[in-house]
Amino acid sequence: MAKKFVYFFANGVAEGKAGMKDILGGKGANLAEMTNLGIPVPPGFTISAEVCKYFYQNNRTYPDGLREEVKNAMKKLEEATGKGFGDPEKPLLVSVRSGAAVSMPGMMDTILNLGLNDKTVEGLAKMTSNPRFAYDAYRRFLQMLGDTALGIPKHKFETALDNMKKAKGVKLDVELDENDLKKLVELYKKIYEEENKQFPQNVEEQLWLAIDAVFGSWMSERAIKYREINNIREDQMLGTAVNIVAMVFGNMGEKSGTGVAFTRNPNTGENEIYGEFLQNAQGEDVVAGIRTPLPLDELKRLMPNVYDELIGIMKKLEKHYKDMQDIEFTIEEGKLYMLQTRNGKRTSKAAIKIAVDMVHEGLINKEEAVMRVKTEDVERVLHPRFDEKALSQAKSIAKGLPASPGAATGVVIFDSSKAEELGRKGEQVILVRPETSPEDVGGMAFAQGILTSRGGMTSHAAVVARGIGKPAVVGAETVEVKEEEGFFRVNDTVVREGDWISINGSTGEILLGKIPTIKPVGLEGEVAKLLEWADEIRRLGVRANADIPRDAEVARKFGAEGIGLCRTEHMFFEKDRIPKVRKMIVAKTKEGREKALEELLPLQKEDFKGLFKAMAGYPVTIRLIDPPLHEFLPHDDEQIEATAKDLGISSKELKDVVISLSELNPMLGHRGCRLTITYPEIAVMQTKAIIGAAIELKKESNLDVVPEIMIPLVGHINELVFLKKIIKEVADQMIKEANVHIDYKIGTMIEVPRAAITADEIAKEAEFFSFGTNDLTQMTFAFSRDDVGKFLPEYLQKGILEHDPFKTLDYEGVGALVEMGTRKGKSARSNLKVGVCGEHGGDPRSISFFHKAGLDYVSCSPYRVPVARLAAAQATLASKEK
Amino acid sequence: MAKKFVYFFANGVAEGKAGMKDILGGKGANLAEMTNLGIPVPPGFTISAEVCKYFYQNNRTYPDGLREEVKNAMKKLEEATGKGFGDPEKPLLVSVRSGAAVSMPGMMDTILNLGLNDKTVEGLAKMTSNPRFAYDAYRRFLQMLGDTALGIPKHKFETALDNMKKAKGVKLDVELDENDLKKLVELYKKIYEEENKQFPQNVEEQLWLAIDAVFGSWMSERAIKYREINNIREDQMLGTAVNIVAMVFGNMGEKSGTGVAFTRNPNTGENEIYGEFLQNAQGEDVVAGIRTPLPLDELKRLMPNVYDELIGIMKKLEKHYKDMQDIEFTIEEGKLYMLQTRNGKRTSKAAIKIAVDMVHEGLINKEEAVMRVKTEDVERVLHPRFDEKALSQAKSIAKGLPASPGAATGVVIFDSSKAEELGRKGEQVILVRPETSPEDVGGMAFAQGILTSRGGMTSHAAVVARGIGKPAVVGAETVEVKEEEGFFRVNDTVVREGDWISINGSTGEILLGKIPTIKPVGLEGEVAKLLEWADEIRRLGVRANADIPRDAEVARKFGAEGIGLCRTEHMFFEKDRIPKVRKMIVAKTKEGREKALEELLPLQKEDFKGLFKAMAGYPVTIRLIDPPLHEFLPHDDEQIEATAKDLGISSKELKDVVISLSELNPMLGHRGCRLTITYPEIAVMQTKAIIGAAIELKKESNLDVVPEIMIPLVGHINELVFLKKIIKEVADQMIKEANVHIDYKIGTMIEVPRAAITADEIAKEAEFFSFGTNDLTQMTFAFSRDDVGKFLPEYLQKGILEHDPFKTLDYEGVGALVEMGTRKGKSARSNLKVGVCGEHGGDPRSISFFHKAGLDYVSCSPYRVPVARLAAAQATLASKEK
Repeated sequence: MAKKFVYFFANGVAEGKAGMKDILGGKGANLAEMTNLGIPVPPGFTISAEVCKYFYQNNRTYPDGLREEVKNAMKKLEEATGKGFGDPEKPLLVSVRSGAAVSMPGMMDTILNLGLNDKTVEGLAKMTSNPRFAYDAYRRFLQMLGDTALGIPKHKFETALDNMKKAKGVKLDVELDENDLKKLVELYKKIYEEENKQFPQNVEEQLWLAIDAVFGSWMSERAIKYREINNIREDQMLGTAVNIVAMVFGNMGEKSGTGVAFTRNPNTGENEIYGEFLQNAQGEDVVAGIRTPLPLDELKRLMPNVYDELIGIMKKLEKHYKDMQDIEFTIEEGKLYMLQTRNGKRTSKAAIKIAVDMVHEGLINKEEAVMRVKTEDVERVLHPRFDEKALSQAKSIAKGLPASPGAATGVVIFDSSKAEELGRKGEQVILVRPETSPEDVGGMAFAQGILTSRGGMTSHAAVVARGIGKPAVVGAETVEVKEEEGFFRVNDTVVREGDWISINGSTGEILLGKIPTIKPVGLEGEVAKLLEWADEIRRLGVRANADIPRDAEVARKFGAEGIGLCRTEHMFFEKDRIPKVRKMIVAKTKEGREKALEELLPLQKEDFKGLFKAMAGYPVTIRLIDPPLHEFLPHDDEQIEATAKDLGISSKELKDVVISLSELNPMLGHRGCRLTITYPEIAVMQTKAIIGAAIELKKESNLDVVPEIMIPLVGHINELVFLKKIIKEVADQMIKEANVHIDYKIGTMIEVPRAAITADEIAKEAEFFSFGTNDLTQMTFAFSRDDVGKFLPEYLQKGILEHDPFKTLDYEGVGALVEMGTRKGKSARSNLKVGVCGEHGGDPRSISFFHKAGLDYVSCSPYRVPVARLAAAQATLASKEK
Repeated sequence: MAKKFVYFFANGVAEGKAGMKDILGGKGANLAEMTNLGIPVPPGFTISAEVCKYFYQNNRTYPDGLREEVKNAMKKLEEATGKGFGDPEKPLLVSVRSGAAVSMPGMMDTILNLGLNDKTVEGLAKMTSNPRFAYDAYRRFLQMLGDTALGIPKHKFETALDNMKKAKGVKLDVELDENDLKKLVELYKKIYEEENKQFPQNVEEQLWLAIDAVFGSWMSERAIKYREINNIREDQMLGTAVNIVAMVFGNMGEKSGTGVAFTRNPNTGENEIYGEFLQNAQGEDVVAGIRTPLPLDELKRLMPNVYDELIGIMKKLEKHYKDMQDIEFTIEEGKLYMLQTRNGKRTSKAAIKIAVDMVHEGLINKEEAVMRVKTEDVERVLHPRFDEKALSQAKSIAKGLPASPGAATGVVIFDSSKAEELGRKGEQVILVRPETSPEDVGGMAFAQGILTSRGGMTSHAAVVARGIGKPAVVGAETVEVKEEEGFFRVNDTVVREGDWISINGSTGEILLGKIPTIKPVGLEGEVAKLLEWADEIRRLGVRANADIPRDAEVARKFGAEGIGLCRTEHMFFEKDRIPKVRKMIVAKTKEGREKALEELLPLQKEDFKGLFKAMAGYPVTIRLIDPPLHEFLPHDDEQIEATAKDLGISSKELKDVVISLSELNPMLGHRGCRLTITYPEIAVMQTKAIIGAAIELKKESNLDVVPEIMIPLVGHINELVFLKKIIKEVADQMIKEANVHIDYKIGTMIEVPRAAITADEIAKEAEFFSFGTNDLTQMTFAFSRDDVGKFLPEYLQKGILEHDPFKTLDYEGVGALVEMGTRKGKSARSNLKVGVCGEHGGDPRSISFFHKAGLDYVSCSPYRVPVARLAAAQATLASKEK
């Protein structure tokens, strides 16, 4: 093999660079980059990750020539440092560290002080005039090599150290003297013997043992698990590189030290250096947290020159990398060395502030800022979260589906009316229900959060919670709700009504007790600025799903450009309306139904006026009645009796209606446009309310109203033809009589697979499409979202499905239908407006798909609008990159 | 317009020909063809159906030039006959008849003897030396023109005739003498006056009144209804042509007559002339069934020369048209005229026999025979017959003519509308009428059978019944129908409306009471031969859906080439198994379930052995458990209590299980492969039973067993991957241990839209596909088959859907998925076997689609296998034609 495996760096010249992360790993590439920038970095070299790939493909052996290359590199390292590897006089010591393209902090092996043996330790002692330091380095090396490369249990070394400290009556390692450490070295060697291992005095042998260990750690259980948890796909990476770097020592005395620092504050994003250091210490001491580090200001006081140099380097690095840097440094007897630099992790708040600030500072442009902030960051800053400290002490008892993000804490209440009553008084309440129904909406609105034991990501509880921006955990199947008995149980833990619990709607976690929450920042300052830039960039429009004027106003505040879905039936459930709806349902004749509808008409018209007002100038898509009629009727005997009385009919009559309307599979039953085809008078009333509202607003205040009438559940062009004719007749007649100009559209949901498949036919009649991806997912998978809790968690756990398809659009199946429907629809009507109003409209991964599929807009719950705006902009930029 | 509208024929030369049916109609085209063949046909001409189209597109007016063309044709007709239209000396009389491309017997208007008026009637009397005949012709013409062209109620004329006969004390029309008929003519004219109508003495005026009436009758209510019932699409036809032909008279005395005949027996298909005639009569007398006609043998005795000529002409016609002909003839004073020929209607049995015989006779080839027989014919010959035992105990009360074969049982209904109404509801009805007329067609279509007291084998009732495959007994003269009083009487036996009777259309028997019918089994004779040819032609394989050995045996007898679907859960419902299934369901641990499954294993294995034996050498596709588990549990309290007792658990425990398994939309719930993914032990048991059965048969009797294990409801490749691994491990281990060779396959249903969309992925793992078009239709339309009754009838009635998609595959939607799934599947695995096992597998229209979509086989219920074999062959031939 003629390939190059080893990349050397020293004295301002490196063979690698920052762009070579794939083969040098993040650490190696950045060490090379820093070297080239003239920043002081100890000399060393990186063995390419391609060697790691070869290692695993060839039964843990190395490619030909590697040993030779490493040997040469070691020779060059000896020259650069003026020391000799294994030289008893002037020994060269090295660190051997892993470093993959994607950072996996702490997951893989590191060995320091390699090159020490019984002879070189003496040389080191002499060279540094510090025998205590030399033996301390030796005993550390003995432990690391034994543990990491030879599998000797770490605790054996630690026990020996502890015993030594106890015997001496001291607490800290630094309190042990030279002799103690020499004894410890002997004790450690005995541990090797006990374990039947040989400590190699040969430094070459040490080196290869360490290299083996580092490559081997790529496939260690914890590394595999880390990649799994963090969704790092192994097959997309070569493996890890190995960095072999000359040791510098922060523990050589008072003029030495080590530290870590961020170029900006990773918690707030403020443009200020943030870091800490330890005098007379090695890096591991900082990480291990044994001694409490000092703030970086102390360094300024102790070594002002070093401090100034460090600040200069950090500024240089940030400017060079154009991102906040997280660096490690060591000071060896007054000389500063940079050991690592990388883009620093940060809180969501900081991520947004840093991105926006850097645009203002001219470091990056708006597009880069938009790509750099994660949608989760925007989501997090807009929702309450738990106080981290309190959270770390809380007890998690169960996990459900993270249905609506944010943290909430309150007392458990099972009854919705009671929750509403307490909530109105300002008390913090968590509403806990097996599942919710329209009757629970009041309680949900006044609770801090909602917890259900049944239902999926698109269950009633989930949809409503997201709509009103309340944290919710749903489908927590291990939670057994005993409403009647006034408690819920998770295994052995019993939580009574009135007890405090906390829920995390972003993770699905359910915790005992009251955990303080931190209020969200709101849509202002840097977040607002960032989303403004996102708006400039994105191609996809962003609308909101909103049923009532209050929601529409929230949506506008969050930047929605119209309503993509108003579910008219939600209005039907309100207390003053449901009796009228029921009257219509039990009417035996068309005339009877029309009479009941006549009473609903003025109420619906007022609702629409409110929506149109809140969205003046923007389109408002109103979906005609969708759910099966039985949803509007009571089902238990007691309620039936009461309702029958109200309606002035016998219980038996009402029960007969309930029975006649019951269906085995209501999801596939008499609902959507099938209802209005059977009872066109409902479509007529709703059209009158929509167009009537538009006309009145036009006349009263000359408001620009853009109504879009949407017909649900169309599967066949003829359904649309039938209803469009009825709607058009009513609407055109009203507009003509009113003598005003109203530009209304008639379109359809695409939520039945057949509609997507025959979209070219349907587009001949439909003026717009809106993909109802919730139902489309149900039909395409044959998954009832109400019942999917029985097997979906298992599917996710067994890896049969990668994502919950109700949360993230299934690209290959449902997505193929969305793509097909859009393409066919636009081929038949080039100006067809195509949107999506399912839950996926607010999911970033799905939004990226919708962008690529050529949709015109997404519509989501008002609280998701900011996330959707950012995701849409990122989708635009990602497509351009390609 | 330079177009030609009128096509003349006379003396061996015609402007039209048989191939011009589209514009000349069936009757006109065949009159032209016969003229060209030198067969004696009265001269005449045909007004093209294009005129009919113009007529309806132009507000019932005629194209320019038509009147001129008709005038010229009439002139040529005068020349050809040597008579004059309206000539008082030698009057030319004509018939005016409708004739569309598709025969609609009796549905449209006919006017005979046109050209008679107060003067020409005298000329006719002189010319024929038969004044009685002339006045009889005149009064008939008055009635027909009045009724048909001027809307004078027919019964007024009939009452006048009846009164006249009563007054004279005679029974038959022929018993009235010249003077009676002259008086009748005057009475008929009075009826015109009473109705404020003018009888036109001008013959031109008569002619155009008649032409108007015939074109007008195309859109008469009964004609529209007929087309609706017979699925004749109006828009695919121009309309009707009008035939104007010189009259010849069968009622000019003893040397005259009229008749109808078939070149082969239309009931049995025997190659023998079959017909009847009436001496001294006009055609309408035969059709009306007023006088009972004589068999054709009588003609041989009475007029041997005419008989021989007729036989010669019929042979010539059949050879020319290569199909059995239905002809009408008239003998005018010893001279034979052919008035019509057409392909004769026939029973299904006859259709098959004639097609097969004609191949043997060299008239047509096998392909033509296969295309000529309708799938309905094959279906009908396998129609129910009476249960012999029940029949032997039944009381026969009368016998009529065996007009249309088959057995039928139902309640007596006299009114056709009522019969239709009840029939639509699925009630079994026998329509009982004195005779039938075109108004009765609706009731006939929805009755189980038809019984009339009058008319012959070619009466309206008989012809229509054979056409629609309904058993019929006609001309049962001892049956006295008292429609008004709501009963019929045979001697002393009174049968009231609503009473059950049974009729045998093959024997003519009428029996009291409800006699159970059973389906015939076995194919033999001509049907077997025809299907043999179909097998040679078809590309699609035909399998059967069968769950038990008995069904598998029937399927083999019917020609099934394997089992395409064995629903294993059907076995689970049997009495000895369901307790074991329930034990499994209530078990709380895997071990508990495995114990219960262990008990089921030997039973399932025996079932499979039976199936494999019956299908030795053919593939047997066994679907793993499909329905949701709650289907196996009781649901009402009483049963729950009993079952709980059997299971040795408390009612509450069982009820909790029932509740925990209940789903809102079970169709989209925890079933199919989702069950076996949750409980892999069920798949393990079923695999053991399948492979175990195969191994035992192989060892016991070296039978060739081809098991195909089918996984239901797969939507994602990973579901298949997961289960295939489990099944393969068990199967391969068993086969290895048994040391035999078993070639088994693992495949999947394609019944979830997502599976069809991602078929290329799925085919990487599946060795075969079977489209479950029932479920695929449910998901693609979002129609629950159990609930669709709430709106589907309305959809069909309103024309929103053309067909019930559960009966005939929806080409555009579900069909597109079938096509996509097949194409994608085969692209990923070229030898993928693709079939269908939904109800559509036995529907001819759907089979034609499956052929075109490139499927390999269809699978249907055993009794549909013969139909499927024929349909598959026809699909092959139809594709080749293209």
